[in-house]
Amino acid sequence: MGVVIPVEEPRHDGGSELEALSALVASDLSLVNSLILSRTGSDVQMIPEVANHLIESGGKRLRPLLTLAAAKLARYPGDGHIRLAAAVEFMHTATLLHDDVVDESEMRRGKASARMVWGNQASVLVGDFLLGQAFRMMVEVGSLPGLDILSTAATVIAEGEVMQLAAAKNIATTEDEYLAVISAKTAALFAAACEVGPALMGATEEQDAARSYGANLGIAFQLVDDALDYGGREAKLGKKVGDDFREGKITLPVIFAVRRGSPGEREFWKRTLEQGHADDSALETAIELLQRHGAIEETLARARHYGATACEALDVFPDSQAKRALLDVIDFVTARAH
Amino acid sequence: MGVVIPVEEPRHDGGSELEALSALVASDLSLVNSLILSRTGSDVQMIPEVANHLIESGGKRLRPLLTLAAAKLARYPGDGHIRLAAAVEFMHTATLLHDDVVDESEMRRGKASARMVWGNQASVLVGDFLLGQAFRMMVEVGSLPGLDILSTAATVIAEGEVMQLAAAKNIATTEDEYLAVISAKTAALFAAACEVGPALMGATEEQDAARSYGANLGIAFQLVDDALDYGGREAKLGKKVGDDFREGKITLPVIFAVRRGSPGEREFWKRTLEQGHADDSALETAIELLQRHGAIEETLARARHYGATACEALDVFPDSQAKRALLDVIDFVTARAH
Repeated sequence: MGVVIPVEEPRHDGGSELEALSALVASDLSLVNSLILSRTGSDVQMIPEVANHLIESGGKRLRPLLTLAAAKLARYPGDGHIRLAAAVEFMHTATLLHDDVVDESEMRRGKASARMVWGNQASVLVGDFLLGQAFRMMVEVGSLPGLDILSTAATVIAEGEVMQLAAAKNIATTEDEYLAVISAKTAALFAAACEVGPALMGATEEQDAARSYGANLGIAFQLVDDALDYGGREAKLGKKVGDDFREGKITLPVIFAVRRGSPGEREFWKRTLEQGHADDSALETAIELLQRHGAIEETLARARHYGATACEALDVFPDSQAKRALLDVIDFVTARAH
Repeated sequence: MGVVIPVEEPRHDGGSELEALSALVASDLSLVNSLILSRTGSDVQMIPEVANHLIESGGKRLRPLLTLAAAKLARYPGDGHIRLAAAVEFMHTATLLHDDVVDESEMRRGKASARMVWGNQASVLVGDFLLGQAFRMMVEVGSLPGLDILSTAATVIAEGEVMQLAAAKNIATTEDEYLAVISAKTAALFAAACEVGPALMGATEEQDAARSYGANLGIAFQLVDDALDYGGREAKLGKKVGDDFREGKITLPVIFAVRRGSPGEREFWKRTLEQGHADDSALETAIELLQRHGAIEETLARARHYGATACEALDVFPDSQAKRALLDVIDFVTARAH
């Protein structure tokens, strides 16, 4: 499509921000990866096949990295954060497996989605297995506050997904309604991933701050994702440009374009997103309309706003390597569109 | 179909056995029902709609009843068993919602399945929501052993379902393989439901006994279900006769008939169950073959064997109303075919 998405210059070279974080928690992450591998194991061969198809498909491990870094930020001295980080990744993977069934997606992270290879049935059931394993690992850590945070997140994520389902194909969706959806379906797991480390220390103030950082980072992450869907390059995203459009998803760029559009344009959005006439030529028109109304730019501005709030949330923590790494993640997330 | 399934006479009038159990834990069950109702609540309207469609559809609440009675059996004096019983019912309901998607079922408990009314997407996501709520309730009880038992069961159930998926449409499935599937997909939750009450008391020996009772009862329950699929009346089952057959499920009656059948008969099973030519006239032939080889009768005999083992497991407990009620449940389960 050749669409140029305007974003601020990142503080570092694009893409390097996660490397600082990865380096900081390298030994922990390697323990998490071993644990993930061993806990997808089962005598039922199809389970590790389906699980590892997705887990080894080059995901960034962003959420478990956040758990590890936030535990470091709170100076947690134990090893419970390893299992919690693996549990967070399993919860995320389970959500993706179920999402692919719900959205009827054909691709995920640049390769065929699990449901295309093994069927919807295996995707649903292996998702359930991973969710069960996630809870088992939390139980092994033995932290009831940690269990509380993550089980609540599991509920809220599902609530957000259902909310999105109920709002789907309705171009009258408001910005507030949309923010409620992504706060639940995306930001809740980011928030929980960041909160569980400090929660192991029982440090309430630090817990709240880490949670706020995660929640705001999660919203920024989702908004950038929404923008990328109308302009990212396939190789970068691992999904096709226009997937949200073809699925009739109402995201923030669309909400802005509908609000600012003429009656004729609203007819266009209704026809494509509500009535399903969203082919490739309609996608070109959609991108033109989004650009005309500055909808992508405005969405990215909102993302930077949430990024700034995430940044402020870390004020309660003294300077440390962990804090600097977490601040860099904000750049990584908001500059992904670059 | 008018097939008469031979079973032993129940000790009491058919169907009354659960009433004794219900009466014994009536006040607890009413608390569980209120809790279930309140915990399906959500601002997202579709969630209680989908959840209650199934939860209020006349399920027997057999699993939470077992949790309540087993807690009484172990003389547990607290109120944690109420939340655990509700959690067990939510886990069961989540499994049913996901099963309907996996099996593409059109009916459940005599009415349209949730996925036929609200779609596969809502069934998957509301199942996830209920699973999350189940874990939240367990966390509220604060018993790590209880959490361990139920989270492990969640994993094992999913494993059993995937095992069944992998074995589906394969008439070479052995009795042992089939028992491994139902031990996981059905009996694991019965076992966990019975074990969590005594686990709240930390009484290891009683815990093991209650678990063994539940596991054996669960296998008996599933075997009777399998037999009923080839001969129960629709009104009684809430599903159509022959559902398993039409879905190509290999159950114990079929395994017996295949093993005892002629080469020509094995061709019949291959054509219907493996290759999907399972229409109503094929169902009549299937039932004839099952009867010719005594396959239904043999399956019910196996169910009674597991029932007897469940009975023996309770030997460690002194006589009590709770024990007598749990013994009656075995009759209820094995005499359902009557």
